[in-house]
Amino acid sequence: MKKQKQTNFQVFGINSCTALLQSTKFTINIVYIARGSKAYKNGILEKQLKNNFLPVEIIPKKRFDQQFSGYRTQGIVINFSGPVINELPNFKDQNNQVCLLALDQVEDPQNIGQIIRTAECAGIDGILFPRYHSASLSNAVLQVSQGAFAQMQLYQVDNLHKIIAQLKKDDFWIIGIENNIAAESWAEIDYSGKTVIILGSEGHGIRKKVLETCDFLATIPMQGATNSLNVSAAVSAILFERLRQIQKIN
Amino acid sequence: MKKQKQTNFQVFGINSCTALLQSTKFTINIVYIARGSKAYKNGILEKQLKNNFLPVEIIPKKRFDQQFSGYRTQGIVINFSGPVINELPNFKDQNNQVCLLALDQVEDPQNIGQIIRTAECAGIDGILFPRYHSASLSNAVLQVSQGAFAQMQLYQVDNLHKIIAQLKKDDFWIIGIENNIAAESWAEIDYSGKTVIILGSEGHGIRKKVLETCDFLATIPMQGATNSLNVSAAVSAILFERLRQIQKIN
Repeated sequence: MKKQKQTNFQVFGINSCTALLQSTKFTINIVYIARGSKAYKNGILEKQLKNNFLPVEIIPKKRFDQQFSGYRTQGIVINFSGPVINELPNFKDQNNQVCLLALDQVEDPQNIGQIIRTAECAGIDGILFPRYHSASLSNAVLQVSQGAFAQMQLYQVDNLHKIIAQLKKDDFWIIGIENNIAAESWAEIDYSGKTVIILGSEGHGIRKKVLETCDFLATIPMQGATNSLNVSAAVSAILFERLRQIQKIN
Repeated sequence: MKKQKQTNFQVFGINSCTALLQSTKFTINIVYIARGSKAYKNGILEKQLKNNFLPVEIIPKKRFDQQFSGYRTQGIVINFSGPVINELPNFKDQNNQVCLLALDQVEDPQNIGQIIRTAECAGIDGILFPRYHSASLSNAVLQVSQGAFAQMQLYQVDNLHKIIAQLKKDDFWIIGIENNIAAESWAEIDYSGKTVIILGSEGHGIRKKVLETCDFLATIPMQGATNSLNVSAAVSAILFERLRQIQKIN
């Protein structure tokens, strides 16, 4: 087994920093706080920081604003390291509801960050990113996720096609979301049990070899004249349809 | 009746510009195209421009890039004017499926643009924006919508609460999406018929007076540790649940 990746990251803002501090799996290198800022006065943050004996540097507001200009920090920035990217576990013996999301060729950090956030809210168990066909998991991506990255299992894989073939052997059903004549309407698909839901980018879709691994293809029929639902909006529609099904609502 | 608002706007990129040119309700003031760019070589655009005798200025690539630096133009920028914002019609005698979206206190242009795009894909009939409790319909908003603004009826209203009271008289059911103990699970709500779906911002929610007009309150129960679904992701989940219901899928 390969060693887990460790790199340095930075996030800012009260939501992101609170989520980060609530997780125990990261190493907090330094917390910068602007004196008198919203973060400085925030009770929850103060308690978190005191209880955990973390390295905090209180900086005069003016200097802080110079150092972190251009970011909506709310007066807090944290540098940390740790397992943002995780090792894919073996799901063979899990028999309950497990849903993994796989993003093929999604390159926009804004979209990837939003998808991490939505997936965490929708109870997804992990997200697969192909190493060479995806934006890297940068500070920008983590920031857009508003702290959801700290709760969500993110897996970077060398060969998505091969990993999916293995997951099929471990009893996962593979569902591709793709505008395709063979595709069924998104809500006609059964998302219960062990599933992998694959989405491609708006421009390029899912690569052919990955598409061939799919047991089902689902599409969201466009009702308007423009033909382009944003990929993170599509993820939200699909994941909450899954939640509706597994919670047996309606 | 007040006169329709007319202002000058600018959009760029092939998707946005194609959608704009396909609509007939706007006045195209000038189309700037960079010589040799992706837009310059795009057949659909060329045909559109020729057929409509539009004022086009072909600019050397270098000068174009200087003039529009910092934007992902793909080599095309259009200045236009016309009714981006529309007058609210009378829905009294409409008895089929009509669904209006109302955004109360949503301030982020990125979110508003994404919501316009999602709403257009989901077959929504119009979006209500309170004039003093919403971001203005700026170039940035139109750009994020990727041309969907040209197809979607956008209504800016002075008093959202009063407008909704009128819509109630015209047989609309009012559904508020709000994290509230009285709220039902989002998929338990019946979205068929004439409905107004109201969403607030992530930070502030729906204003109390507007909330009081709601016949139903719906919530999307969070499955993770973070408690913050992005408002445009929430819109997508709700609008495609409505589509599922009115298309009678499953």
